[in-house]
Amino acid sequence: MSKPLILIANDDGITAPGIRVLVEVMQTIGEVVVVAPDKPQSAMGHAITVSQPLRLKRSHIFDGVLAYECSGTPADCVKLALDKVCDRRPDIMVSGINHGPNYSINVIYSGTMSAAVEAAVDGVQAIGFSLCDYSMEADFEACRQPIKHIVETMLQHPLPYGTLLNVNMPATPKINGIRICRQAGAKYAENFDERLDPSGKTYYWMTGKFINLDADDNDTDLWAIEHDYISVVPTKFDLTSNAVIQHLKQLL
Amino acid sequence: MSKPLILIANDDGITAPGIRVLVEVMQTIGEVVVVAPDKPQSAMGHAITVSQPLRLKRSHIFDGVLAYECSGTPADCVKLALDKVCDRRPDIMVSGINHGPNYSINVIYSGTMSAAVEAAVDGVQAIGFSLCDYSMEADFEACRQPIKHIVETMLQHPLPYGTLLNVNMPATPKINGIRICRQAGAKYAENFDERLDPSGKTYYWMTGKFINLDADDNDTDLWAIEHDYISVVPTKFDLTSNAVIQHLKQLL
Repeated sequence: MSKPLILIANDDGITAPGIRVLVEVMQTIGEVVVVAPDKPQSAMGHAITVSQPLRLKRSHIFDGVLAYECSGTPADCVKLALDKVCDRRPDIMVSGINHGPNYSINVIYSGTMSAAVEAAVDGVQAIGFSLCDYSMEADFEACRQPIKHIVETMLQHPLPYGTLLNVNMPATPKINGIRICRQAGAKYAENFDERLDPSGKTYYWMTGKFINLDADDNDTDLWAIEHDYISVVPTKFDLTSNAVIQHLKQLL
Repeated sequence: MSKPLILIANDDGITAPGIRVLVEVMQTIGEVVVVAPDKPQSAMGHAITVSQPLRLKRSHIFDGVLAYECSGTPADCVKLALDKVCDRRPDIMVSGINHGPNYSINVIYSGTMSAAVEAAVDGVQAIGFSLCDYSMEADFEACRQPIKHIVETMLQHPLPYGTLLNVNMPATPKINGIRICRQAGAKYAENFDERLDPSGKTYYWMTGKFINLDADDNDTDLWAIEHDYISVVPTKFDLTSNAVIQHLKQLL
């Protein structure tokens, strides 16, 4: 039997330490193809590039791996990989390892998760991995074994179409285990930092305070991370709120 | 009683004809504030600007309306509007009218919808409006009355936290009515157009064929639009696939 084909992308760019760890772990499981941004693309959400052309450039930074850096967004990388780079359908697509958390409401801003969503929409099993440590010097060692376990399990037991995994890992050498969770309700209390440039014109830096709206519950991804568990949230891209459909039919 | 405060944003930019129609209709309902991108930002998904500062510039293109053009993404516009522009909480936020459809899987790429999602996450009632016509000369006349009806209804009967509306309107002068729908399953069959630049290097234009995965069903937004109905999809930003949680607990 041929080895599984594993497509890897990320949003921190092809040179980030996190994607290197993911490549190393995936090489123990299957054949690896990488298409990743040529520069950091954090917080790009599900942006795609429609009004400019895209470039792919062969990269040799991973030994023995077919890798390209792409001028586009994380979602662009996956689209190009599936259409132009992979010579067969990947058995699974993994994104990350992101430097920083993508739990709770962060999922909607996440380039890491948008790459995984893109693969899932196309019918490829997909998982986004994030370590809850923004540092480029973050320690990924404790993530290796759980990532391998999760990917091997999902290769054996694929999820139904429409679902992917959002996996966040605590920044600790002592992980307590894996928790299957729901996305915690949360929001950012915006507080833009207003400054004057040298010519006296106003500009703004985005800052915000993260507010957990589900702090009392122990079934969320935030609870898991705060208690040193890996959070696994089954995630979908059908955004329909079925619970509200009947109610709306009476109103409109 | 004071008039409702209505915040407006879009992704086609502050000069697009669609946002002008939305401003005109909203002026018949309440007090209007506009914060919209200073350039087109289509397909930006839920991108936000974290590594650059943002600018706001007062605009006078709408008579009697407090309006700003913003250097950021649609989601940035809403964040800045809520923190720096509005002197009280908006009663509702409306986004659009987008030039082009945001039904089905397009919702995840849509800047129009990301602006509305941003408001909803912050707890503001929100609706994204899109006309299924990409032209900048599109005819929005038939949209005016239904938009007014939908906004007035939602002001009277607000949705619970976590839900917003994705409204798509057919490009026809004879609309058959409003249908409450679910998001149709669909994907793009990617087919990048590969070309050589004058120096002989390869570049790629994104093209894709839209594939309706729910073509047999009449409860989807795609069905509604194809039959000249306005589609209203209640939309949420909790992406948890609850149906898969138990299954995963047995696997991982």
